[in-house]
Amino acid sequence: MTTDRIYTAALCVIGDEILSGRTQDKNISQIALWLNLQGIRLREVRVVPDVEDAIVEAVNQLRARNDYLFTTGGIGPTHDDITVDAIAKALGVGVVHHPEASAMLHKYYENRGGATEARMRMARVPDGADLIPNRMSGAPGIRHGNIFIMAGVPSITAGMLDALTGTLEGGAPLLSDTVGCWVAESEIADMLGSIEQAHEGCQIGSYPFFREGRTGSNFVIRSTDAEKLAACADALAAALDAMGRPAIRGAI
Amino acid sequence: MTTDRIYTAALCVIGDEILSGRTQDKNISQIALWLNLQGIRLREVRVVPDVEDAIVEAVNQLRARNDYLFTTGGIGPTHDDITVDAIAKALGVGVVHHPEASAMLHKYYENRGGATEARMRMARVPDGADLIPNRMSGAPGIRHGNIFIMAGVPSITAGMLDALTGTLEGGAPLLSDTVGCWVAESEIADMLGSIEQAHEGCQIGSYPFFREGRTGSNFVIRSTDAEKLAACADALAAALDAMGRPAIRGAI
Repeated sequence: MTTDRIYTAALCVIGDEILSGRTQDKNISQIALWLNLQGIRLREVRVVPDVEDAIVEAVNQLRARNDYLFTTGGIGPTHDDITVDAIAKALGVGVVHHPEASAMLHKYYENRGGATEARMRMARVPDGADLIPNRMSGAPGIRHGNIFIMAGVPSITAGMLDALTGTLEGGAPLLSDTVGCWVAESEIADMLGSIEQAHEGCQIGSYPFFREGRTGSNFVIRSTDAEKLAACADALAAALDAMGRPAIRGAI
Repeated sequence: MTTDRIYTAALCVIGDEILSGRTQDKNISQIALWLNLQGIRLREVRVVPDVEDAIVEAVNQLRARNDYLFTTGGIGPTHDDITVDAIAKALGVGVVHHPEASAMLHKYYENRGGATEARMRMARVPDGADLIPNRMSGAPGIRHGNIFIMAGVPSITAGMLDALTGTLEGGAPLLSDTVGCWVAESEIADMLGSIEQAHEGCQIGSYPFFREGRTGSNFVIRSTDAEKLAACADALAAALDAMGRPAIRGAI
């Protein structure tokens, strides 16, 4: 059975290190690509500081209007890790030590210097939460309703996404195809708009670049329908060829 | 004269290509680092799709509660470039062709195939706007009140930031210093919190990593006061040394 319902997700990236420019975020694209494969569209992203009010506001707005909300960052053992407390506040629930998480951490730190009080902070979850396994380190991610609370370190986030693969309900995945061309997008802007209008259910994005002294563009066609996608890409390639601007299938 | 007032900025990244994961955003860190140098703090970021309502909502929320709002993306010549129209709608003003921008584009395209209607779309601005020069290509950025509308292509954004350097009112720049250590952050979490509490006006961020089989952390201290910053970094380094975990000045 196919469904036309579009499943959406939001991402809230929590961390001063992104807003200061110190750290280049890698979770937005990683999570976006993973969501596409689950048939879920990343609809909006917010980056907020390690400030409780900012996290509460973003979490409550985003969880209410999307099927899923992912957060990254702020779930470590140090004083600046306030994500769990802030999300509990947003949900109006208390913070508890999750017994399974406590057991995992005790086991993980058994031969690594012991489960100190600081380390056991990583067993704290908003009341009512489940765990997301994390094969990279001792501390798990957290799921509460439609909120998925993940690590900030991209390799650990990747492990948590892996654990969630196939467990979330999604719709038809958004397919994409790319047609490249050594042409300035401004030269073919009208044609591009007409082709998109003539192919319902397809969106064309235009991504210009300047490389090795030449101007080019990649045109990305997106649709949930494979046949419509192919027809639109073919029509675009034919139109470019007809203008004497040979189309290249795939990104340049 | 020094001032304690903190100047804040928000960034709205506009573009389906970021939300689809196709393109790795580079403007967040670029703009964050540039803002730091202007004495302005990037307080929040939103990534929104090429959808008018989403842009209008983000622009109106962000411009109202920050000194400055920057946007990137969606100002090219193609049908998916809707940023100018959306921001005009958010501001409740019309869209006009800016005479200087028109002249720039006519000149730029004189020997590049002519100023077609599609290309002249890039002269459209929300009524009342000024231009931000762009030395990379013909199309300028746009300033309207406290909103700065910039290109999505990072190298073009960089040229526009360059043109704005020194023109915005800011406060004391946020200074930072980094102390690295081959220690798990969980081992020293309590000490870290105490050191921060003992140094008013300083924040300590903890950024753990796992490299070449070893666990380490970088501790980033931030303050607008150089003396307080140095005292906090010194105290942290001394505390690490005292725990038999030699501090390394600067990031590992």
